[in-house]
Amino acid sequence: MYSQVSSGCGVEAAVIGGDVRLTTGDSTIDIPAIWLRDNAPDADSRDVLSGQRLFDIVDLPADIRVAEATVADGRLRVRFSPDDHQTSFPLHALLGDADRMAILDLRSERAKRLWIDARDAAALEPIAWESYLRAPAPALRQVVEWGFALLHGVPAAAGQVTAVADTFGYVRETNYGRVFDVRVEPNPVNLAFTGLAITPHTDNPYREPVPTLQLLLCLHNAAEGGDSGLVDGFAAAAALRRTYRAAFDVLTSTPVAYRYEGDGTRLGAMVPLIGLDAEQRIREIRFNNRSMAVPLADPDRVRAFYTAYRAFAELLYAPAARLNFRLDAGDCLIFDNTRALHARTAFAAAGGRHLQGAYADLDGLTSTLRRLEEHAR
Amino acid sequence: MYSQVSSGCGVEAAVIGGDVRLTTGDSTIDIPAIWLRDNAPDADSRDVLSGQRLFDIVDLPADIRVAEATVADGRLRVRFSPDDHQTSFPLHALLGDADRMAILDLRSERAKRLWIDARDAAALEPIAWESYLRAPAPALRQVVEWGFALLHGVPAAAGQVTAVADTFGYVRETNYGRVFDVRVEPNPVNLAFTGLAITPHTDNPYREPVPTLQLLLCLHNAAEGGDSGLVDGFAAAAALRRTYRAAFDVLTSTPVAYRYEGDGTRLGAMVPLIGLDAEQRIREIRFNNRSMAVPLADPDRVRAFYTAYRAFAELLYAPAARLNFRLDAGDCLIFDNTRALHARTAFAAAGGRHLQGAYADLDGLTSTLRRLEEHAR
Repeated sequence: MYSQVSSGCGVEAAVIGGDVRLTTGDSTIDIPAIWLRDNAPDADSRDVLSGQRLFDIVDLPADIRVAEATVADGRLRVRFSPDDHQTSFPLHALLGDADRMAILDLRSERAKRLWIDARDAAALEPIAWESYLRAPAPALRQVVEWGFALLHGVPAAAGQVTAVADTFGYVRETNYGRVFDVRVEPNPVNLAFTGLAITPHTDNPYREPVPTLQLLLCLHNAAEGGDSGLVDGFAAAAALRRTYRAAFDVLTSTPVAYRYEGDGTRLGAMVPLIGLDAEQRIREIRFNNRSMAVPLADPDRVRAFYTAYRAFAELLYAPAARLNFRLDAGDCLIFDNTRALHARTAFAAAGGRHLQGAYADLDGLTSTLRRLEEHAR
Repeated sequence: MYSQVSSGCGVEAAVIGGDVRLTTGDSTIDIPAIWLRDNAPDADSRDVLSGQRLFDIVDLPADIRVAEATVADGRLRVRFSPDDHQTSFPLHALLGDADRMAILDLRSERAKRLWIDARDAAALEPIAWESYLRAPAPALRQVVEWGFALLHGVPAAAGQVTAVADTFGYVRETNYGRVFDVRVEPNPVNLAFTGLAITPHTDNPYREPVPTLQLLLCLHNAAEGGDSGLVDGFAAAAALRRTYRAAFDVLTSTPVAYRYEGDGTRLGAMVPLIGLDAEQRIREIRFNNRSMAVPLADPDRVRAFYTAYRAFAELLYAPAARLNFRLDAGDCLIFDNTRALHARTAFAAAGGRHLQGAYADLDGLTSTLRRLEEHAR
């Protein structure tokens, strides 16, 4: 089967059945010809300026084979048949490819530091606004890994919350506006705008796409009560999977209805409480007791859902799972709304409590973070 | 097992094993006690103003049972044990519940009119801007069901594309700005900004969350070539599932890497080409030959991916699947970027072709549509 062997830099290349086998030390990596042809980095295959691919999969011969493969100067050189195309790859790119791809996933549980015990997260210090402005990367990294960051000393000014979002990305405008006020209102369309306690939840589960980030800036808090809490929904989901797999499977496969109607707005979504990615990793939590409804379908399925829902809620509501803190004027909480559930204790309207919130998205935050971390290397 | 039977309005209620069985004509519906308790619509259970639920699942007894159920005046009245809570439901709400939930799903294939043959979509007429402004619902409904709508006679003015988005929702600002220009540029960071042909694709597959809507307003088109095309990605995915199930399964379970780096931006996502919802319905297509890469993992999996990818591409690129049209000044295309792939033929820079684009999201559009359709009933 080996039609040839070529070696260099401690790496040997052989053509086997029209594909390439690289051998380095005692490990081998088999690379199908079609992958090599599709990923050819030469100027006929990729636009030099944008790096974008210049051809389509249907432009490549279905019977593509590697006719020749050699290793020299740290590169794998390949000639294909039947199209006789020639190209070459840096060896390090081939050897580390799957790992380099995996780090593009900043959304699923594999990119996260889970905390089922809130004491782990309590060790994280709030970050001063001035220090954040000089070097935003640590706070942004904390949002990606831990699901939240707390800034203090932010100017407690109306509208300032969008200036915080502008430091890393873009505000997501919704029917609630670019900025929304969280305080006691006379005719509240949402229980958030009362003094009631709010148990841990994610925001806007009825919105598709859901806002992936939320910012809450405290302008004023002299109320009795009104303390804040955060819970790691990914950690609770992972604990459920570990301890009660059947319940986890029910919650990932049962769409529930979330609905919001008010103010001329009609939002609705059918989504599971625990969303998985294509490889079954935990990727998105939607949990909100105020607006959730499970369709009245097969009664056994409904019963199984409620049993699982209760088990998940018990994990999310466990006192040990909840990081408690108080937002004072100038404190700005930034959190991943697909993972971190937020909560507050009840408060008396008397003293006054006023937060301003804004939604934003993780794409802008992770882009800024990657650029900053590249520069730091 | 029947502890009691109560009837009214042609509906009988019985308590069976602590749950309720409704019988109407020859059909029955079994409703678990926990569902009834959780969905109690009374003022102790739901906030009167917002309709939001006032309790948590963990507040309900785990051994909740229906002690008594009666039907009268079109309502089911229920008393629970052990908490002795009493509530009542309009019968029509219980009987139609699952169907009413299903219509909240406007994203998956079940809400769509698929068109694998572009002649079906070609029968849809462009909608005049003035007529759209008077009655936007038909165009918005078309975006939901067919994946696109074409407006004509829109003012061909710079920035006007955001005014179109404002009629139904909110612009999604990104690193490309609130508005982006599609025309030939001197140092293009994206092949979109050249005169090259672009094969059918979805935009920003490397962004998470992906923009779910795109608007393209033509300001000027005097170029030779530069015609537009649309393909129904849901229809192609459904055809693949029907004709080549193994390929469909590979594309729904294999995350690929999409990446965009340029202009200080670093975007990336690991997502499948065909995204399914929690009940395995087609929900989101991400297809872009220019920026896609499949991780170099297990070679058999890589080969299976490429075979499936080619089969899907052949369906998407089939001439009969593509709706062809030409955007002239004042034409505005609105399309679902999670479903409809867009394309253009090559054009010569000479005559000039200038589109302005904006991203937006389906939540605003579907909210506006539902409100308008409610008012029309």
